[in-house]
Amino acid sequence: MEMDLNAQEKKAGFFQRLKEFPRKLKDGVTKRMKNVKKFGKDDPRRIIHSMKVGVALTLVSLLYYVRALYISFGVTGMWAILTVVVVFEFTVGGTLSKGLNRGFATLIAGALGVGAVHLARFFGHQGEPIVLGILVFSLGGAATFSRFFPRIKHRYDYGALIFILTFSFVAISGYRTDEILIMAYQRLSTILIGGTICILVSIFICPVWAGEDLHKMIANNINKLAKYLEGFESEYFQPEKISKETNSCVREYKSILTSKSTEDTLANLARWEPGHGRFRLRHPWKKYLKIAGLVRQCAFHFEILNGYVLSNDKAPQEFDSKFQEPITIMNREVGEALKAMAKSIKTMSKDSACVNSHIDNSKKAIVNLRIALKSSYPDTEKDLLEIIPGVTMASILIEVVNCVEKISEAVEEFSGLAHFKETLDPKLSAEIGQHQLLHRGSVKPVPDGDNEKEDNSSSSHVLIPVHDEEQPPTATAKNVLGAEKTRVDVV
Amino acid sequence: MEMDLNAQEKKAGFFQRLKEFPRKLKDGVTKRMKNVKKFGKDDPRRIIHSMKVGVALTLVSLLYYVRALYISFGVTGMWAILTVVVVFEFTVGGTLSKGLNRGFATLIAGALGVGAVHLARFFGHQGEPIVLGILVFSLGGAATFSRFFPRIKHRYDYGALIFILTFSFVAISGYRTDEILIMAYQRLSTILIGGTICILVSIFICPVWAGEDLHKMIANNINKLAKYLEGFESEYFQPEKISKETNSCVREYKSILTSKSTEDTLANLARWEPGHGRFRLRHPWKKYLKIAGLVRQCAFHFEILNGYVLSNDKAPQEFDSKFQEPITIMNREVGEALKAMAKSIKTMSKDSACVNSHIDNSKKAIVNLRIALKSSYPDTEKDLLEIIPGVTMASILIEVVNCVEKISEAVEEFSGLAHFKETLDPKLSAEIGQHQLLHRGSVKPVPDGDNEKEDNSSSSHVLIPVHDEEQPPTATAKNVLGAEKTRVDVV
Repeated sequence: MEMDLNAQEKKAGFFQRLKEFPRKLKDGVTKRMKNVKKFGKDDPRRIIHSMKVGVALTLVSLLYYVRALYISFGVTGMWAILTVVVVFEFTVGGTLSKGLNRGFATLIAGALGVGAVHLARFFGHQGEPIVLGILVFSLGGAATFSRFFPRIKHRYDYGALIFILTFSFVAISGYRTDEILIMAYQRLSTILIGGTICILVSIFICPVWAGEDLHKMIANNINKLAKYLEGFESEYFQPEKISKETNSCVREYKSILTSKSTEDTLANLARWEPGHGRFRLRHPWKKYLKIAGLVRQCAFHFEILNGYVLSNDKAPQEFDSKFQEPITIMNREVGEALKAMAKSIKTMSKDSACVNSHIDNSKKAIVNLRIALKSSYPDTEKDLLEIIPGVTMASILIEVVNCVEKISEAVEEFSGLAHFKETLDPKLSAEIGQHQLLHRGSVKPVPDGDNEKEDNSSSSHVLIPVHDEEQPPTATAKNVLGAEKTRVDVV
Repeated sequence: MEMDLNAQEKKAGFFQRLKEFPRKLKDGVTKRMKNVKKFGKDDPRRIIHSMKVGVALTLVSLLYYVRALYISFGVTGMWAILTVVVVFEFTVGGTLSKGLNRGFATLIAGALGVGAVHLARFFGHQGEPIVLGILVFSLGGAATFSRFFPRIKHRYDYGALIFILTFSFVAISGYRTDEILIMAYQRLSTILIGGTICILVSIFICPVWAGEDLHKMIANNINKLAKYLEGFESEYFQPEKISKETNSCVREYKSILTSKSTEDTLANLARWEPGHGRFRLRHPWKKYLKIAGLVRQCAFHFEILNGYVLSNDKAPQEFDSKFQEPITIMNREVGEALKAMAKSIKTMSKDSACVNSHIDNSKKAIVNLRIALKSSYPDTEKDLLEIIPGVTMASILIEVVNCVEKISEAVEEFSGLAHFKETLDPKLSAEIGQHQLLHRGSVKPVPDGDNEKEDNSSSSHVLIPVHDEEQPPTATAKNVLGAEKTRVDVV
């Protein structure tokens, strides 16, 4: 009886599912379609690229559809189709690199192949396949081996592949046909047609430049660092306040940790691109990688900091609260420096005065941090252990300031090489900055020559509560908590 | 007169250079040859792979050389050559992935292409190219767009490419030939021949398995972490003693920082491989990536530590020397745990008892580190600032212990899924370990249940100077300096 009931239930369930199937299918399809739509919207260049490939394919198929063209090329027109499909890449650099590699490799390998066939014919009909076999084996093997060398792999991998392909193809076919020269010529010309169509479509219809992508990526990565520092205060000191949204925004830096291969690829492709827009032909693409490396180094620090931020085992609140102000100022200033650098890269205009002033301000905040630390001298031995997470956190944050300073140096070097335009006379802006600071009454003019750096503070974040009574004039901004080579004691 | 002398000098210099040219050329060539030889010796599999490609090319060229084969395939034999060149990859997984992608994509696209040609013929000779053009444009564009989706990009990118290629090729040729079915069949069969030759040569002549490479890479990376910790003591405490060789050995961990893309690629290819050697078909390849991620996290910590190790601004020596002993023990034990894990992965045998005992020992060293830290309570405010680099360094090293514990958990989970063989009855080995420790008189048996982990200490590095008078029995190994969620005060 129970069995019967069970069976009935199962049956009913089956029909229920059968009824629901069309709805579920519709829901599933709608969801997929929405995903696809969103994916396209996220980067509309993907849709444009797909249509560009369609255009290139349509153009190349005219070799078949137009009678006059078909008569001259015949079935070898398929090499053109093949070339379009294989060579067309998302970026102009990718297409150019593959197209040029394919063109030159075909030319060289075709010539060698024809030579090989002529050489082999000296050995008679019996010896010919043996000689050809030995040549194909050895040249194919050697070219394959060359693909392992990093230098060739990075720039000419596809060329080596096409070299093996064309040489084997011409040499082996040569055994069966006498029209080897015509064949080699037809292959070369159709490949040139296909390659040219790709390159023209790639460059002249909504081009995607690898160089520009790299440029934007580096600027965005620097911005991501700034976002982390901006969100740090609320994350560490008021963890109960933060929303999910700020959280994901703060975590954006994580993508930098593993972005090296993307950066390397883009820099590699950018070198194939001609001058375009704001980028000249010999734009210093390699320098981006240097900046990117320093940015990543900074992200490593954040990753370690994260362990202390997310830990439940923080230093006691009364201890942390003493730190809060200098740390907040330090982070804000470093963040502003990073933002200024990102903006300077994005707009390709020099702004080192502003960057330097923010970095100097953050260094002053470090001095205050040291003072705050000193004043939180532990009362008991137990207290010493308790404050360790807080001390470590502060120490790593100070290292971050050093990292950012290195980034700023790299960006400044780069801005010179890449001919960034000057925004303002630096001396003039320095004077303005000095004047502003004095006007706000927050920084006293220091008698040594160091103060020329405190300049151009167009930002609103320069007010620093300097503990005048404790800070001697000899304490330069370089005196950071165990982070610099020379140490001048603040005490 | 002077001009004349200059000209004479220049002339003499030119002849000198001309004389030296053959020698220089010879030197240059010899140097290059040596480099190439060394490069081949570094990984002889590169040479073997190059020869395998040669063999595959020779085999496939028989389609042209052997009359009977040439009669049946004709010039379409070139597709087989093309397939061999393009599909043959360094690893078996790579070859299989490309071969299968190419085979199936050709099959599907070929069928669709034939269908498209038949459909287009309904529209008359005028309408045919228009319909074909629209079909090629839309299907080519859609397949190109699909290549942007990460899931397709990782596994079926090549398949999508070949789909576009074959579909365009069949559909466009269909306009000019009536033997479309024969063409599609010949293309498919030659591609199958080429693909099969590749796969057979790749698997049966000295195979290179992506899975095995990944397996070894992860074990080696864990070993690199151990090497860093081994070298840490001399690097930090006796920087004057270290040789250049140890230095480069210690820095090996740096390669882990950016190895993510290699690991991802290998894991991706490994999934295409059939069961081989010690690896079954459904080996948990994804778990390697989890372990690799944790290993990289640990390497991030080293990168930050490095800043403190290389800095000239260390804590005063009398302070550091108090730390030296517990830190040395901690690092040694963690290093031993890492080595045991690497060995366990390499030999595919479970050894969690040994790993756990080392980790427990390192945690005990942390307790001693806390005690040492407490006893170094700063005398003055100035001293507090001075010891900060040392405190930070210690704090990060403790985080490293946590990292390593997470790695050991991941390795243990993985060893279960991958069916590692048991080496010893864990209970038995635990008892042995306990016995050994008691015998050496260095660790007192603790009354709670925690001591079952202190086991199997076959290594010679278990002697820990526990400050018995200070360590209460309730202080479990979890009480680490701000690194765990629950805190039991040692004081």
